[in-house]
Amino acid sequence: MSSASANEDCLGWAARDASGILSPYKFSRRAVGRDDVSIKITHCGVCYADVAWSRNKLGDSKYPLVPGHEIVGIVKEVGPNVHRFKVGDHVGVGTFVNSCRDCEYCTNALEVHCEKGTVRTFNSVDTDGTITKGGYSNHIVVQDRYCFAIPDNYPLASAAPLLCAGITVYTPMMRYKMNQPGKSLGVIGLGGLGHMAVKFGKAFGLNVTVFSTSISKREEALGLLGADKFVVSSEPEQLAALAKSLDFIIDTASGDHPFDPYMSLLKTAGVLVLVGYPSEVKFSPASLLRGMKTITGSATGGTKDTQEMINFCAAHKIYPEIEIVPIQYANEALQRLIKRDVKYRFVIDVENSLK
Amino acid sequence: MSSASANEDCLGWAARDASGILSPYKFSRRAVGRDDVSIKITHCGVCYADVAWSRNKLGDSKYPLVPGHEIVGIVKEVGPNVHRFKVGDHVGVGTFVNSCRDCEYCTNALEVHCEKGTVRTFNSVDTDGTITKGGYSNHIVVQDRYCFAIPDNYPLASAAPLLCAGITVYTPMMRYKMNQPGKSLGVIGLGGLGHMAVKFGKAFGLNVTVFSTSISKREEALGLLGADKFVVSSEPEQLAALAKSLDFIIDTASGDHPFDPYMSLLKTAGVLVLVGYPSEVKFSPASLLRGMKTITGSATGGTKDTQEMINFCAAHKIYPEIEIVPIQYANEALQRLIKRDVKYRFVIDVENSLK
Repeated sequence: MSSASANEDCLGWAARDASGILSPYKFSRRAVGRDDVSIKITHCGVCYADVAWSRNKLGDSKYPLVPGHEIVGIVKEVGPNVHRFKVGDHVGVGTFVNSCRDCEYCTNALEVHCEKGTVRTFNSVDTDGTITKGGYSNHIVVQDRYCFAIPDNYPLASAAPLLCAGITVYTPMMRYKMNQPGKSLGVIGLGGLGHMAVKFGKAFGLNVTVFSTSISKREEALGLLGADKFVVSSEPEQLAALAKSLDFIIDTASGDHPFDPYMSLLKTAGVLVLVGYPSEVKFSPASLLRGMKTITGSATGGTKDTQEMINFCAAHKIYPEIEIVPIQYANEALQRLIKRDVKYRFVIDVENSLK
Repeated sequence: MSSASANEDCLGWAARDASGILSPYKFSRRAVGRDDVSIKITHCGVCYADVAWSRNKLGDSKYPLVPGHEIVGIVKEVGPNVHRFKVGDHVGVGTFVNSCRDCEYCTNALEVHCEKGTVRTFNSVDTDGTITKGGYSNHIVVQDRYCFAIPDNYPLASAAPLLCAGITVYTPMMRYKMNQPGKSLGVIGLGGLGHMAVKFGKAFGLNVTVFSTSISKREEALGLLGADKFVVSSEPEQLAALAKSLDFIIDTASGDHPFDPYMSLLKTAGVLVLVGYPSEVKFSPASLLRGMKTITGSATGGTKDTQEMINFCAAHKIYPEIEIVPIQYANEALQRLIKRDVKYRFVIDVENSLK
């Protein structure tokens, strides 16, 4: 299914071992196939997944490892079967680049739940046996189904964090009908995911309460992001005052924290959705039994929801708060991400710095 | 609102202290009010709640404590406003006997979630300030809203366990649309609740797998109860063979057990509903994040669902498996319940033994 074009050299930054230290790395991308889109990468968001896999936190890292799955850029070539995109279009690529396309989830555009498993954007075995390499690189070749249109009026740098952070919080909000004005949303943790949850919440007309361990985020949460309330999560009285007041909580915290105090803030039939990754989830059965409450989990989303979310952001002028950095800053960016020292997402300016 | 009738003497069996030992106890029930139904109790099911409160496991027991919230009997008097029931009707009373009737839950017949809290059938402070006393007694006076019609063709003894065990598993099955034939149900624990879950599952046309720590329950699970599969929960290979195969799991186990192995049996978007009461719930976030799985809780149900469930049981000839015992056996029954030595629910023959 390959077209006439040949494999193409690509420059990226890769981790070589579990130190996770990134440095320049030359490799090649496949030739553009009939269904492929080749994208000149302009920007790539820095996600905690980049830390996790660069440092082999999940034990399955395949080095050299080029991270990055919040990819945006400009189409530079398309295969003959591709009609959705043309050269010059602005496009994005998220956390996966292939799936079986045949199972009930793929046929419902919920490819993230593909029964055979997705091919992730980096550190995954592609259908041709190669290891996928992510967006800390000059270009990428992806089948058109797994590319998203970025509206021309939406800044490319701002679009990058939508592809993982944005869709990760948008998906469960839509699943639980949290786009209905007047409902109450709690957001635990105010990082890349949390700050997008606040923005979506306000765009949906929700009453949004932010829970953070750091009082330092109060002003920005209320001012810049427009949250209605800010609660320091270590203060029990502040939590108690909100008992049974929330319809939905998005828990973006990856640090360990108690769950019972937050469950007590949910109304009857309320839902806490976990999108962070603490070491364990532990609570009293009473937290579920009293008031038929629910804990559920969510990870990114399918292609239909992702495109819908991008379009929603463009229509409502929702932009992630980003700090644009050159690729040469990537190692420091990952370090600062570990220390949660980022407001609220690093985006690598690949186009202007990776040469 | 009292009618012309006077307070009436009642004989029950009560625990006097945290030993939980029951013995005969004389008290009085209120006069029949305008909206009240007075019921001659014929049978009362023995629920683990009877153990918990008799022995002050929850720390709020008020002695003398007359347990029992799976109550059935025959109407012996009604107040002037009562039109749903007449003298001689077969009726049941479940886990609560009053609620505010005004909140969004009460107005939707979900009184169990009443915003002001329900008045429980025993060990609860009633609206007149007295402590409610349960079904281990000759008669009870209950407002008609909290009484259920038992069809004449349904054996009274068999109806008792429906009022707590039955509704506790029926409610979440209906909430999660598990009455659709062909879906797959897992049932953890095969006691009073679990065996009813199997019966409902088969009546709904589900594929039912029972998980039990005891191989001794295998034959009855498959034969008597009609389950499709029986798995000894301590055998990892048996569990692994069912990976991603279940739509829904009802967890009735009150003993501590791991949750991750069961979560791995759920399909994408599968749900585990907790109706038992282990000391804690603990699992890996991956159990939720991979496949947007859910853990939720449920406790009994509202009046509309309870009546619907009773009618469903009568229409489909679904009868709990019961061991009928005299009130004099109550202490031994509670002991055997603690040891899980019951197939599958004790029902006290109040009418013929409590004199």
